[in-house]
Amino acid sequence: MPTLSRRLAAEALGSFFLFATVIGSGIMAERLAGGNVAIALLGNTLATGAMLFVLIAWLGPISGAHMNPAVSLVAALRRELAGRDLAPYVAAQLVGGIIGVIVANLMFDLPAVDWSTKVRGGTGQWLGEFVATFGLVLTILGTVAKRERAVPAAVALYIVAAYWFTSSTSFANPAITIARASSDSFAGIAPASVPGFVLAQLAGALTAAWVARFLLDEPR
Amino acid sequence: MPTLSRRLAAEALGSFFLFATVIGSGIMAERLAGGNVAIALLGNTLATGAMLFVLIAWLGPISGAHMNPAVSLVAALRRELAGRDLAPYVAAQLVGGIIGVIVANLMFDLPAVDWSTKVRGGTGQWLGEFVATFGLVLTILGTVAKRERAVPAAVALYIVAAYWFTSSTSFANPAITIARASSDSFAGIAPASVPGFVLAQLAGALTAAWVARFLLDEPR
Amino acid sequence: MPTLSRRLAAEALGSFFLFATVIGSGIMAERLAGGNVAIALLGNTLATGAMLFVLIAWLGPISGAHMNPAVSLVAALRRELAGRDLAPYVAAQLVGGIIGVIVANLMFDLPAVDWSTKVRGGTGQWLGEFVATFGLVLTILGTVAKRERAVPAAVALYIVAAYWFTSSTSFANPAITIARASSDSFAGIAPASVPGFVLAQLAGALTAAWVARFLLDEPR
Amino acid sequence: MPTLSRRLAAEALGSFFLFATVIGSGIMAERLAGGNVAIALLGNTLATGAMLFVLIAWLGPISGAHMNPAVSLVAALRRELAGRDLAPYVAAQLVGGIIGVIVANLMFDLPAVDWSTKVRGGTGQWLGEFVATFGLVLTILGTVAKRERAVPAAVALYIVAAYWFTSSTSFANPAITIARASSDSFAGIAPASVPGFVLAQLAGALTAAWVARFLLDEPR
Repeated sequence: MPTLSRRLAAEALGSFFLFATVIGSGIMAERLAGGNVAIALLGNTLATGAMLFVLIAWLGPISGAHMNPAVSLVAALRRELAGRDLAPYVAAQLVGGIIGVIVANLMFDLPAVDWSTKVRGGTGQWLGEFVATFGLVLTILGTVAKRERAVPAAVALYIVAAYWFTSSTSFANPAITIARASSDSFAGIAPASVPGFVLAQLAGALTAAWVARFLLDEPR
Repeated sequence: MPTLSRRLAAEALGSFFLFATVIGSGIMAERLAGGNVAIALLGNTLATGAMLFVLIAWLGPISGAHMNPAVSLVAALRRELAGRDLAPYVAAQLVGGIIGVIVANLMFDLPAVDWSTKVRGGTGQWLGEFVATFGLVLTILGTVAKRERAVPAAVALYIVAAYWFTSSTSFANPAITIARASSDSFAGIAPASVPGFVLAQLAGALTAAWVARFLLDEPR
Repeated sequence: MPTLSRRLAAEALGSFFLFATVIGSGIMAERLAGGNVAIALLGNTLATGAMLFVLIAWLGPISGAHMNPAVSLVAALRRELAGRDLAPYVAAQLVGGIIGVIVANLMFDLPAVDWSTKVRGGTGQWLGEFVATFGLVLTILGTVAKRERAVPAAVALYIVAAYWFTSSTSFANPAITIARASSDSFAGIAPASVPGFVLAQLAGALTAAWVARFLLDEPR
Repeated sequence: MPTLSRRLAAEALGSFFLFATVIGSGIMAERLAGGNVAIALLGNTLATGAMLFVLIAWLGPISGAHMNPAVSLVAALRRELAGRDLAPYVAAQLVGGIIGVIVANLMFDLPAVDWSTKVRGGTGQWLGEFVATFGLVLTILGTVAKRERAVPAAVALYIVAAYWFTSSTSFANPAITIARASSDSFAGIAPASVPGFVLAQLAGALTAAWVARFLLDEPR
């Protein structure tokens, strides 16, 4: 296994590119789409899915390419990540990811941090985040167990689908939820809406970990 | 082979996510597309194809990932599914799928069941459903026989194409036809239009099973 | 090797689905796109590329999945297809393909044969067809020689690109050029424009066969 | 290893198709998109990503399929390309690529060389080019080291994402930057803007080569 510092660098670098892609393509899409949000979401979806495939393909063998505290938490509960590595993983994801958002803002000549004013929440959207993260964690655990070579494609395509079928456009990631609070684009989320989303995500992730035990017939 | 209860759980869970994706992305696409149906269909297509790949990749090794009574029927006729498992498979698909539609409606703050008023039918559309299901079953049987590793991609991409080249946007699945009756979005179908679609689908599926015997040179 | 009748059935069936997809998705896209031709071409591209992957994946091992007289001609010149099988291959492609166009028209409640009035031609578009077919044949020969498992994806993605980078939207197939004359949609071509396109396609295919000998270092 | 002349032919041919695709699909997309730049960028992205996959799949085993002087420079620094082959590689990329742009212009009945008037630059866009090329070179080095079979898909999808998440739409290639100066489409760049872009690209490529040494734990 690579050294912890190399794995943390991989998590930070992956989160940098993933979050810069989510935010940067959101800004680009909104600027170009002339007010048609479906077209903007197509561009945002394509970019996010493509980048996820790339990052999981080459960073997966180094750090697991979690880039997501909910995924790291489930990995720690399943003892696939050492418990003492959980906090450093989450810290690396947050630091790398927030730098990614800042760089995305700077690339588009926006203030480095541009607090979002986009309020998100309510039962429907929280249910959306629960379902989105439930499906993401099931996809990861299921594909790792049943068709490991397809993991980069499966995770990327799951998020492509989830951007469209969940009412919240599927953040499904506590770190990205926090980071997206600092981008005032159509991909943003108002800081006050963050806690509700993160709670729904953690509930979805833990439920998925529990369902996977039965479905994949794992020893208890 | 996994136990029947595990296989039924896989069929129900897969149908839950597949149908929630078809309906949820239909609602999202229609809301965002500003009246341009082609843009809405692009989003709906992308989400459905992506989710099909994901589900077949990891549920395929558990239950076959049929998520479609027409596919289970052909599998039973070919004795790849035990005859006594056919009814439970179809029931699991319907129960999981209908819950998926309900959850999709709730995520978007719609009534849990929202009967469709979209009438579909006529010779052209029935021919469309016949061709769509004929091609779907041929794709499954042909790819399983000739390039098994490509099954998730081939089935997903077949449906991507069929959403566009058939006049009915390719339901190609009796369970999804029934479930889509309870969504009043552009992906819906009025209850009275369901039987015509289902009959055309079953005819297409059975014709495909018969053509495959010759084309794949299978022992009779 | 499968029997000739089975191989011809595969060519006819593949051409049926390929041509039905090109024409059917063209009609669907034009009807839904509200006059924005770029959106219509996105739908047409997605459907055609997806169907090409599917058909080559499972019909390739049976007949080679040419579905294109220019490809069969090059295969015959390279003695990968027996000379006496060339005419039957082309006939199967034309018969299957024309039935595909007729079925596409019928699915959309159009006359079975609907002659196109869309004039195509001129130096720019003929150059487009030359380049499109040159690239298609090089892609096939190159990928078969250097990365055979990627053939379905490579051919499908080549056509995805060629729909956009050539001024003629890349017919690149004499049979499909003839068949598209009987569809009066945005994918059609006026009968009088067919010969110019076919000549440019054959010139491109033969040039590619000649370049491939040097580039792939094949024995002469 | 193939002879140098065969490798140079592969670089020239690959650059021909890549640059013709970038420019040709840019012209096509702009003409059809009715002023909606996001739709035009979707078409341009799809075509470029698809063609990159195709070219890397079959030309990679011959020449490495660099089609990019920044990539060849890094390969030479890492001694994966002989130092004396660097200049011929870059020359082949430029010659093949410029012919590709000329042919693209001619296919669309434009003047063979059509100088761009599109000024690009400023801190934000230079940062964009730095990030775009940094990520491209990291993707190549990382995927070659950790999941070699995914190289064609990973490089293609990286560029798909980068077209959307960088403010400069990710040229990330000095040869293509020079070539795009001779196309007055939405994919063009004014000649005076070329040097700033090329410097940012080289800086990004060299930084990536340095980061990769640590992250991939390569011997120094």
